[in-house]
Formats: sequence, structure tokens, C-alpha cells
Amino acid sequence: MECYLDNSATTKCFEEVKDIVINAMTKDYANPSSMHIKGVEAEKYLKQSKEIIASTLKVNEKELFFTSGGTESNNLAIIGSAMANIRTGKHLITTIIEHPSVINTMKYLEEQGFRVTYLPVDEAGIVSLEELDKAICDDTILVSIMYVNNEIGSVQPIDKIAQMIKEKNPNTLFHVDAIQGFGKYKIYPKRLNIDLLSASGHKINGPKGVGFCYISEKVKIKPIAFGGGQQKGMRSGTENVPGIAGIGMAVLKTYENFEEKIDNLYRLKSYFVEEISKLEGVYLNGKTGLDSAPHIVSASFLHVRSEVLLHALESKEIYVSAGSACASNKPTVSPTLKAIGVEKELLDSTIRFSFSFETTKEELSYCLDALKEILPKLRIYKRH
Amino acid sequence: MECYLDNSATTKCFEEVKDIVINAMTKDYANPSSMHIKGVEAEKYLKQSKEIIASTLKVNEKELFFTSGGTESNNLAIIGSAMANIRTGKHLITTIIEHPSVINTMKYLEEQGFRVTYLPVDEAGIVSLEELDKAICDDTILVSIMYVNNEIGSVQPIDKIAQMIKEKNPNTLFHVDAIQGFGKYKIYPKRLNIDLLSASGHKINGPKGVGFCYISEKVKIKPIAFGGGQQKGMRSGTENVPGIAGIGMAVLKTYENFEEKIDNLYRLKSYFVEEISKLEGVYLNGKTGLDSAPHIVSASFLHVRSEVLLHALESKEIYVSAGSACASNKPTVSPTLKAIGVEKELLDSTIRFSFSFETTKEELSYCLDALKEILPKLRIYKRH
Repeated sequence: MECYLDNSATTKCFEEVKDIVINAMTKDYANPSSMHIKGVEAEKYLKQSKEIIASTLKVNEKELFFTSGGTESNNLAIIGSAMANIRTGKHLITTIIEHPSVINTMKYLEEQGFRVTYLPVDEAGIVSLEELDKAICDDTILVSIMYVNNEIGSVQPIDKIAQMIKEKNPNTLFHVDAIQGFGKYKIYPKRLNIDLLSASGHKINGPKGVGFCYISEKVKIKPIAFGGGQQKGMRSGTENVPGIAGIGMAVLKTYENFEEKIDNLYRLKSYFVEEISKLEGVYLNGKTGLDSAPHIVSASFLHVRSEVLLHALESKEIYVSAGSACASNKPTVSPTLKAIGVEKELLDSTIRFSFSFETTKEELSYCLDALKEILPKLRIYKRH
Repeated sequence: MECYLDNSATTKCFEEVKDIVINAMTKDYANPSSMHIKGVEAEKYLKQSKEIIASTLKVNEKELFFTSGGTESNNLAIIGSAMANIRTGKHLITTIIEHPSVINTMKYLEEQGFRVTYLPVDEAGIVSLEELDKAICDDTILVSIMYVNNEIGSVQPIDKIAQMIKEKNPNTLFHVDAIQGFGKYKIYPKRLNIDLLSASGHKINGPKGVGFCYISEKVKIKPIAFGGGQQKGMRSGTENVPGIAGIGMAVLKTYENFEEKIDNLYRLKSYFVEEISKLEGVYLNGKTGLDSAPHIVSASFLHVRSEVLLHALESKEIYVSAGSACASNKPTVSPTLKAIGVEKELLDSTIRFSFSFETTKEELSYCLDALKEILPKLRIYKRH
């Protein structure tokens, strides 16, 4: 039984996504900037996708910009707004458990003369509101905090964070990296006081190579790349029509019967958490209930190297991640696991199981059986 | 008869491109950074695409970086190399007929304190070697010149330009925007002394949303976006596996029976040029022989507004561009047409016809007949 439990790394495209991508590649393939009817037909795909996403987020269509993916969305939101507001201040705030596309962008801005505060998190991976409160200054121009952590599935109190930011300094912008959260939560940036929001296609059964950035019309921001002036000059380059059509379709399908699908994910997660907890020497990282993301379980296996366990599971067609692995494939010690205080001997023994709407209880049961069989064997080898 | 003559704006994907994109979206959909076998399978698509492109360009695979398209490739090459070499000098050289993704990137760098020389061109759209010679200084760190102009198909003497640059200042890098040239010429950057080269998928019957940048291993360059460290840190973000596989396949198919296909394009162009020249009040822009690109014909129609002609042709299912139109869809006066001295009354009367390998003589004949029928009618209206 093939059992793909690496959906936080990437997902399989929905059939409907594949179909619309093919149409945009071979039938309505024109350049949406072309003035003739074939250009207009291509442009309709962009409009339709934007309509779907705008109505899902309850934002205006003109506040949406398509990018090449989550990394570019995070770079655009952070660099673009920091550079545009440099005269207001040079202080930025983020957390120590952000994705590298946020952390490394912040490091770049430090080189450019910005001051960055990296907030700690508690043992459940939740940012400290007290520390945030202390960190916000008069010259804080941007706070960037992720919705769902990609490694352990911790969920930040985005509403409270936004409220605190706006109370403390109404000029401070709030960016949310929602790359793991969008498609698992209903997110309404305007209600939540989110100014900028990043999302990615391939995490929600859409295409790779496409994402979007919500940028509130109130935000002062500069583009980070330059060209033909597409997307109101904010993101030049011939629009990736198939990708953009695909992400729109993925959003549409994702939010159909949404509550039902999320409830089911939580049921699966609850079952998996309960059963895996019965195994010897297994430690779950972060929260595991309804206060955690529905699709991520992070577990550390005492005396088992994650890479070895990953390949043992692979031999049974079970596919998981060691640590986060949505970055480059050189495994390094995860800053997130360190940040939540995972013991040193478990840091290199951690596996992430991540589910999709297509994941079944049978698959999880098969995976649990495999663990029951594999773990004692791997620990025998360990003793030699 | 549908007659798509807007192939310099974008092209239809090859069937083989569509097939490999589908496979990467629905079968081998894993994240190439994942350590399990499904990740390895996805990574094979990247390797295969890189092998094809490297052998086509006769460069090393490690000198190729995948991007989201031509615009990003130009931004990466120009901003990345300018920023990395800022201590060597702050002078850049380009031409006045470059694509907006070069021109506007240069303007951005001017705001960052760089000095930019914009070289003029002659009435055929060819850069002046004398002017280039005069412009290169001790502190010139980069020259960026396009291979084929996107509006009039003029071809720059890239070999002579490179030779002059390297003789005058061996430290000056040479970037070539080959977005319209790649796939129409055999380009070997190492033989030509090109240090950086940009290309795009969707101009060569590959997917939109993907391109590549050749960066010689000798070039000092910095990334322009930051994240998980994919592509050796030069271009972070989960690789667009379907797009990358697609551009590789497009390159493979493009360069099969290449001479034959190019000869055929020139035969078509020669036929079209000869016939269109017989029409009254038609002026061809730039060169039109073997010394021009095989796929672009730019013609100005006296007393006819290009937008009106475009829509008249559209009513006969003939699709062309007014001016360049691979930028945003607001038509402005083309700097390229102005640069080559097109008369004022013809600036807004110019149409670009651009061919693909699938263009047939029948289509061109149909287009010529349509012009013969339409032009006198439009000119009658003009007189009222």
C-alpha cells in the first residue's frame, strides 16, 4: 500500500487542476497581455483565479498578486514592505521558528542595515505575546509571523498578535506566512488585521511554481523585480497562466465541503496520535489536539536515527520527512525543534507525518503497523 | 483558418511538453528535496532537464539555474552580478532597445547608485561597436545586450561585442538576454565569451512560469531572493518540477532537426517579406534577410492605426501584436521603433508578425490576402 505522508513538503495535483493547466498550455495558450481575443481568453484565466481567491479570503481582487511560489511571496512581502517603509523605521520582528524563506530574508535585511528581533516560542511552539509586546517599538515597521509551523504544526494566535501590534503601533505592518495554514484554515486577512499574506500552490494540491501574495491596498510596498509592468508593476513577467489557473482551481476545490474535510483530518490525526503514543520511546512534538494544525504530526523516536527510519518506512512505500525537508536536502539540525526544547538525543530522531484530504485511516493504520514492526528492529541494531 | 502569428509574445506548448508536465504534476509529484525515493524520482526530472540544456549550450550543468521566467532571469543576472561586483565598479552598459525587464532593472540600479550607459542603435536596430568601445571604462562591471530584439528581430553581433568587451576590460561581465534568440540560434556561451545568459520557456513552446539563467562558474554573483537554499542557494524555493521538466523537453524538441526548421522559417519569412513589400504604403522595420531573426517581421502600415488593423485581422482569426506587447497591455510608443528612426506617423501603425516552427506558407498566404483586402478599407475610413 502506497502511503504518501509528506504532504507538507508537497502535494499531488487535483485532477481538476491538471485539466485546467492543460487547457491553458495547449488551448488558451496566448499571452494575457496580447490585445487580440486569444490574449483576452488567456486573461480570463487570471481573472477567474483572482476572483476565487479574493472571495475565499474576502479581500479585493486588486489586492492579490501572483508569484512563483511561497518563497517569492515571502520575499516580496518582507523586502518589498521593508524597503518601502525604510524612512518610517528600520526595525523588524519575526520568530525563531519561521521558514528559511522568512529567516534568510530577514538576515539579508540585517545586512542592509535593518534591526531584526527574533522572538522565542514556548515548548509547544507558540510565540510569546509578552515578548512581542516588549519588542514592538516606535520604529517597528513590520512583524512577520507564520500561521502554521511547517515542522510541528503549531498554530500561532494570529488574531491576538495582530490586535497587539495594531494597539502598540498602528503603523507596524503585519505579514503572515500562511503557506502551511492556507487551505487548512479559513483565513480572512481584513478581519484578522493581516496586511500581507503569503500562500503557495503546491501545498494545497495546486501546481508547483506558483503562489500568491495578498497585499492590503493600504500597504506601502515596492516591487523586488523589474520588467514589463504586469500585475500593476508589482510583479513583472508574462503571467504563468497555467499555474495561476491551477492555483485558483486548487483553492476552489480545497474549500469545497471544507469543514467536513477538516473534521476528517482531525479525526485521522487524533487516531494517529493516540496509536503512535502507545509505542515505546515515542515523543510527540508540539500540541496534538484541535489547537494544532490538522495535517501535521511530528514525532521523535528514541534511539532511532530519523534518516534510517525514513528509509525503512520507504521500503514499505511509506513516505515521510525527516525534520522539515521542505528546504534543500542537506539535513541540518532544525531550529524549530531546538526552539521548543527537544532534547539533544531526539533532535536527529524526528519524523514529520503530514496528511492530505486524500489520506485514509487504512493508510495510517498500515503506517502504524509498519512502525510497530520496524522500531524494535532498528533499536536492536542500535545496541550493537 | 486560424493563423497565430504572435509567437514572440508566447507559444503553444509542444505535446511532449504537455505530457511531461502532466507526469510531474500527478505521478512524480514529490518534492525533489525530500529524501525518500519519490523525492529522488522528482529530482530526476530536474537533472534530466539540466542535462538537455547543458548539452545544448555546451556548458556545465552546475552553471544552470532555473527561474520563474525571462524577467526573473534578467533580474537575477543583472542585479545579482551588479551587487556582487559593486566594489570593482559601479558602471553598467546596455542598449536603448532592450526589453523592459532589462531597461527597468537598469533604472532600479541607477537608483541604487550605479551609472548606466544606454547605447544607441542604427536604423537597422544594430548596436554601434564604436559607441560600445567608447563606453567601456575601468569601472564597467557589466554589459547587458540582447541577442534578438523582440520587436523588430534585429540580431546583435554578440561575438564581436564579447570580443571587444574582453579586450577592453577583461573584468567586465557580459550578459545576453537570449529570450528571443534561444531556440532560433545555436548559442554556445563559452565559445562566445558570454558570462550570463537568460532564456524563457514559453517563447520556445515550453511552459509559462519557467526560465533559466546560465551563470558561468567564473562569475561572482549574489542571489536576489532568499529561502531554503535550493539550487545551491542561488534560487531558493521548491523547484517547479513540471515547469523545469517542460522547458527541458521544449529545448530538446526545438533543437531536433534544427537547421531544417530554421531554413524553413527563413523561407517563410522571405516569402512573407517579398509579398508584403508589394503592398502599398507598407514599410518594413529593421533587416529582413538572413541577417535578421527568422521568426519576426515588423511592418508599418501608412495611415492605418495598428490597433485597428490588429482587430481587423483578428476578425479573420489572424493574431498578431501591435508593437511589442510582450509587456503589459497598455500600448505605449515603442522605444525600439523610435530608436531605429521610424517616422512619427508610422510609430502607431506598426504590427509584429511572429512565426513558430508550425507556421505554414498557407497561413502566411491567407494573412497576406487578408491584408490586401483589409488595408484599402481601413484607409478609406481614414480619409473620412
